[in-house]
Amino acid sequence: MFFASDNGLGASDKVMQAIVAANGGARLGYGNDDGTKKVERMLSDLFERDVGVYMVITGSAANGLALSTLTPPWGLVLCHEESHVIEDECCGPEFFTGGAKLVGIAGPGAKFSAAALETALARLPKRVPHNAPAHALSITQSTEYGLVYSVDEVKALTAIAKAKGLNVHMDGARFANAVASLGCSPAEVTWKAGVDVLSFGTTKGGGLACEAMVFFDPAKGSDMVRRRMRGGHLLSKHRFLAAQMEAFIGDGHWLELAGHANAMASRLAAGLAAVPGVKVPFTPQANGVFPILPKPMEAALKAAGAVFYPWSDKSLPAGVTVGADETIVRLITSFATKADDVDRFIATAAKAATPLAAE
Amino acid sequence: MFFASDNGLGASDKVMQAIVAANGGARLGYGNDDGTKKVERMLSDLFERDVGVYMVITGSAANGLALSTLTPPWGLVLCHEESHVIEDECCGPEFFTGGAKLVGIAGPGAKFSAAALETALARLPKRVPHNAPAHALSITQSTEYGLVYSVDEVKALTAIAKAKGLNVHMDGARFANAVASLGCSPAEVTWKAGVDVLSFGTTKGGGLACEAMVFFDPAKGSDMVRRRMRGGHLLSKHRFLAAQMEAFIGDGHWLELAGHANAMASRLAAGLAAVPGVKVPFTPQANGVFPILPKPMEAALKAAGAVFYPWSDKSLPAGVTVGADETIVRLITSFATKADDVDRFIATAAKAATPLAAE
Amino acid sequence: MFFASDNGLGASDKVMQAIVAANGGARLGYGNDDGTKKVERMLSDLFERDVGVYMVITGSAANGLALSTLTPPWGLVLCHEESHVIEDECCGPEFFTGGAKLVGIAGPGAKFSAAALETALARLPKRVPHNAPAHALSITQSTEYGLVYSVDEVKALTAIAKAKGLNVHMDGARFANAVASLGCSPAEVTWKAGVDVLSFGTTKGGGLACEAMVFFDPAKGSDMVRRRMRGGHLLSKHRFLAAQMEAFIGDGHWLELAGHANAMASRLAAGLAAVPGVKVPFTPQANGVFPILPKPMEAALKAAGAVFYPWSDKSLPAGVTVGADETIVRLITSFATKADDVDRFIATAAKAATPLAAE
Amino acid sequence: MFFASDNGLGASDKVMQAIVAANGGARLGYGNDDGTKKVERMLSDLFERDVGVYMVITGSAANGLALSTLTPPWGLVLCHEESHVIEDECCGPEFFTGGAKLVGIAGPGAKFSAAALETALARLPKRVPHNAPAHALSITQSTEYGLVYSVDEVKALTAIAKAKGLNVHMDGARFANAVASLGCSPAEVTWKAGVDVLSFGTTKGGGLACEAMVFFDPAKGSDMVRRRMRGGHLLSKHRFLAAQMEAFIGDGHWLELAGHANAMASRLAAGLAAVPGVKVPFTPQANGVFPILPKPMEAALKAAGAVFYPWSDKSLPAGVTVGADETIVRLITSFATKADDVDRFIATAAKAATPLAAE
Repeated sequence: MFFASDNGLGASDKVMQAIVAANGGARLGYGNDDGTKKVERMLSDLFERDVGVYMVITGSAANGLALSTLTPPWGLVLCHEESHVIEDECCGPEFFTGGAKLVGIAGPGAKFSAAALETALARLPKRVPHNAPAHALSITQSTEYGLVYSVDEVKALTAIAKAKGLNVHMDGARFANAVASLGCSPAEVTWKAGVDVLSFGTTKGGGLACEAMVFFDPAKGSDMVRRRMRGGHLLSKHRFLAAQMEAFIGDGHWLELAGHANAMASRLAAGLAAVPGVKVPFTPQANGVFPILPKPMEAALKAAGAVFYPWSDKSLPAGVTVGADETIVRLITSFATKADDVDRFIATAAKAATPLAAE
Repeated sequence: MFFASDNGLGASDKVMQAIVAANGGARLGYGNDDGTKKVERMLSDLFERDVGVYMVITGSAANGLALSTLTPPWGLVLCHEESHVIEDECCGPEFFTGGAKLVGIAGPGAKFSAAALETALARLPKRVPHNAPAHALSITQSTEYGLVYSVDEVKALTAIAKAKGLNVHMDGARFANAVASLGCSPAEVTWKAGVDVLSFGTTKGGGLACEAMVFFDPAKGSDMVRRRMRGGHLLSKHRFLAAQMEAFIGDGHWLELAGHANAMASRLAAGLAAVPGVKVPFTPQANGVFPILPKPMEAALKAAGAVFYPWSDKSLPAGVTVGADETIVRLITSFATKADDVDRFIATAAKAATPLAAE
Repeated sequence: MFFASDNGLGASDKVMQAIVAANGGARLGYGNDDGTKKVERMLSDLFERDVGVYMVITGSAANGLALSTLTPPWGLVLCHEESHVIEDECCGPEFFTGGAKLVGIAGPGAKFSAAALETALARLPKRVPHNAPAHALSITQSTEYGLVYSVDEVKALTAIAKAKGLNVHMDGARFANAVASLGCSPAEVTWKAGVDVLSFGTTKGGGLACEAMVFFDPAKGSDMVRRRMRGGHLLSKHRFLAAQMEAFIGDGHWLELAGHANAMASRLAAGLAAVPGVKVPFTPQANGVFPILPKPMEAALKAAGAVFYPWSDKSLPAGVTVGADETIVRLITSFATKADDVDRFIATAAKAATPLAAE
Repeated sequence: MFFASDNGLGASDKVMQAIVAANGGARLGYGNDDGTKKVERMLSDLFERDVGVYMVITGSAANGLALSTLTPPWGLVLCHEESHVIEDECCGPEFFTGGAKLVGIAGPGAKFSAAALETALARLPKRVPHNAPAHALSITQSTEYGLVYSVDEVKALTAIAKAKGLNVHMDGARFANAVASLGCSPAEVTWKAGVDVLSFGTTKGGGLACEAMVFFDPAKGSDMVRRRMRGGHLLSKHRFLAAQMEAFIGDGHWLELAGHANAMASRLAAGLAAVPGVKVPFTPQANGVFPILPKPMEAALKAAGAVFYPWSDKSLPAGVTVGADETIVRLITSFATKADDVDRFIATAAKAATPLAAE
């Protein structure tokens, strides 16, 4: 019953086999191998246009490096106040951008609305040269709370951003989960919806360690080859990044894996919602469930061997609160989550709930 | 006949098997897995003292991050003028340190002597606060030209450094080759010889992508957990770094691999030295040979399918020059280099040499 | 009727005379002159302990440089959400600290309470190493809205900060106004109340361009001599900074100037409060008044030659709002503000108010 | 007998009077005053084209900020190995550029030749993306050793730079001395000779603290307003910078002051050259003399009250050496140097020389 994170389950078999298969023979390093070139073509096909591709090994690197091309060191990057870039990268974006400032916008489920973005932009002070000007918008797709922006929601956000001259980044550490959830094409929810650069993750979705920055206008990424090297993020044995990505996006593998993870989250949420005493504030659209549990139930689940983390209550929907005897927790499903584990988790919760419900 | 680099041959079978074996089941991410803890103990055993260990995926990351703990942003780092840190990391050390300055010292074979270090330190201007003060020394072991500092040479350098209050870094991207060459213990040529932090490489030696910063005083690395995260260098599926390192250092695998690579370089150098018209300026101590070839011979080798790069003539021994009709090239052997390829390379060179010699 | 800023009126006569007087003869540069040494002693006397003094020419430089000694590049600095450091320095603190993140706390009058600080600290996520840890607190004294923290209020804030291991910075661009307002000793409201470093401003108070970083533990500022040089902030003709500071703090000049500015603000606020249709949300404790004016009155004042800026309504007290026909403006008085101008401003407002009141 | 530096003598009377005169009345801050606008026009006139002007208070700030517009953080800046930017700004250029690397070129008198530049560029390694690419050239005019590049020499250097796509910076902390020495127009030796940005100093020449970045293509400086603010280098009471610059460049004051300083250096050099035992390796073209003195003579001069510093022997002409009983010293003359002091210095040296000559 491992729901701690989608990075806890290793790589998918197909990805691992591809890594092993890539191991024979001599190849040029630093991305000059044929595998890397092939992956670049595959991603161009996937996104239905020529894209610039730069692979690295963490989402934080992809995000920080991508943002560094979208803002000068004195710019503002608007993002959700609980987004990974502002909260979970230990000032990485500030490091890579040379000191840009991230500005958090509130919203339930780590999503913010077009109206919230508009208000945030309107309320920024704009005295020149004292106030740092807004230069970029970062949207997390799917969000840190397992929600997904619809294509129209992305378009609404980017329209506002573009009208103000902002560049748009999409943090897609769980992009696969979003696309699987939306059922749209990858192009539709990215460049066709106004996104300039995507951090396209494989790691949480079933890769070993591989994240691609995808520049929809390749010219905008032209200095990334230098930035990546300077950040110590250019893998010499680059074939192994290419192998992961090829296996991940080939034959729809990524969407199968993500579809499974999403289904497990829905199953988990539905099961938990039926347990007395459990609140499920968000209907999951991707692979995360954030239930509010009675504390004894949380303890019972941990005692039964479930692994998961407590979470923040900052981005709950209006009116939902965490009581003194409750905890909000994060349950992340993955490509490797078993339905049995989901069901056992629900059953354990239900059993722990009975005495409560009896009261 | 692939002599382009030691990063062109993938990972050793043992390392790859360890990666595959690490793939089952759920584990906590970000270095909280048992494998990582085990590797930390193994490295402490290997170095005969408690060490602080931080693994990343490139040598440039290990070097830059390590240096950032040894100098403030306004400090000088002395190193060889053709060292990797000053020349091959696209200003990475400047990025990680926040703007420190690398000062190059000359010396044949990318080695510098104690006397050269002393002179360099003496000639630094020392007006306060105008001149940036020296804070660190970086020694490459083995060097970019396939040479090795003896234990006494390292001690002589660090003694000078310590007397001036400098911290000492060792770039050990090819540390295995140096230890295999010296036949000493890893402790002897590092902390016992005055080194504070080692970038301990596996990638060039047979890993997939794994380099450990080893802090001989663990307290000095205490903020590395933040620095590594901020640089986007903390792998979530950290078990795969641990698996590589465990396989690499377990049962002397690393020294076997390095010993083979070194032997192949010696074989190559000896063979080439006997070819008329070829100069071999340095007797290899590690896994690199830097012969000066007649240009037609270079062409013949390339035509025969040999892969290698031209190199710089900046660090040649006094009196050795590259003639107008000659090229200096770099030949790197690796754990996977075959003796047949070495011999074929020599034979091809010899064949190309015959007409020259006949003249 | 110039109320645009306290930097619009040049230097006080005494300060200017000191600059002129400092112009004769040869002196060593870069702070090695006797005048600088004298000022260091004077500031130690003023603050009743040995302090480390580093003078620069802007408050932004003093703030950024001071903060760079209080937090690593991956730390959080808590401050008011409308403070100068977070809003008006164009990402200067991020630049000087190498990428630290400023976290804004709300509160009326650009002041925040101990409770607000406590809540902000409690709500920071604390997962290691993802979440950047809090390292410093920055208090603005007097605030951007003309309010002053009492000695007890400062103590309450620093007690919370110290309990969490935070260093404390005080942005004292208008420190003189605060001390004049409180009637306490400079020591009482700084180091005796838990402040580690003060940005002590003269520029807004009557200097030409001189701000001192005052380190209450001189050892904590020991690398400032390098940081200041590296930032291009070490004046060669340093005697002119010393001359300003000596004139400013000598014979209580600074408190006389500040006392006058404060009195003019009180006079202005009292006068405006009596004008029908004008709201004065804060009773000024320093040299700023932030009235909410009917728009026609604002226009009438501008037409009469008054110079002032519109301001933000973000930090208004609960319940106070700016109506659709109103504007909130900032009126700053200074050492050079004339009572006549104040009275003329009030009279002009009153005249513009009459028809409104008549309605 | 003060020859320690040209920043030891305060400001010229005319400059100081202008500062005093600028002190009356209210003006908008941060460069929005009429004086600043006037100075911008005056500099455009002086340089015979529309220029972008950004004033700051130190040469280090002007240099670092200017360079930050000419290179990305991963670029190389070529300069003399004893230039101020590489040696005397405590890693300031690295700070402002975000980590660019300065590459020193040797040459007597802190001047380098076109051939030396060409060789330096040719010898840079150019493997992409490992080696940082050259992005800028910085020329110091006049040099740290009192020499001046002729217009043709500047043209030859910038032609090489431009052919390689490099931007060109001129460090003109002593630009006045160079122009006075060359007798050319300011335009001729800057943009007409291929310079993109000039750090135009007044401080060493007779200002109090004022250096202007002059962008010959104003568009290239368009983000300087942000960079300067972020660096804490935007003076609020900007009128005082404008006053200095107006006084300095108005009516040829700057060239009169520089002409005097240059003349004093020539007088000093000529006098010293005639003293037995003194070597004068460079005939001064600007305001510095770098004689090699017998140590007893140096002591005698100090005993007589002369103030000066020992200097480096790194950039001496071929064949000139400093003997074991000798010292090379730096003597800087200024706008305020008196001929009497020069003559007394020479006489003191001559007197100290007599017994030596007698041997």
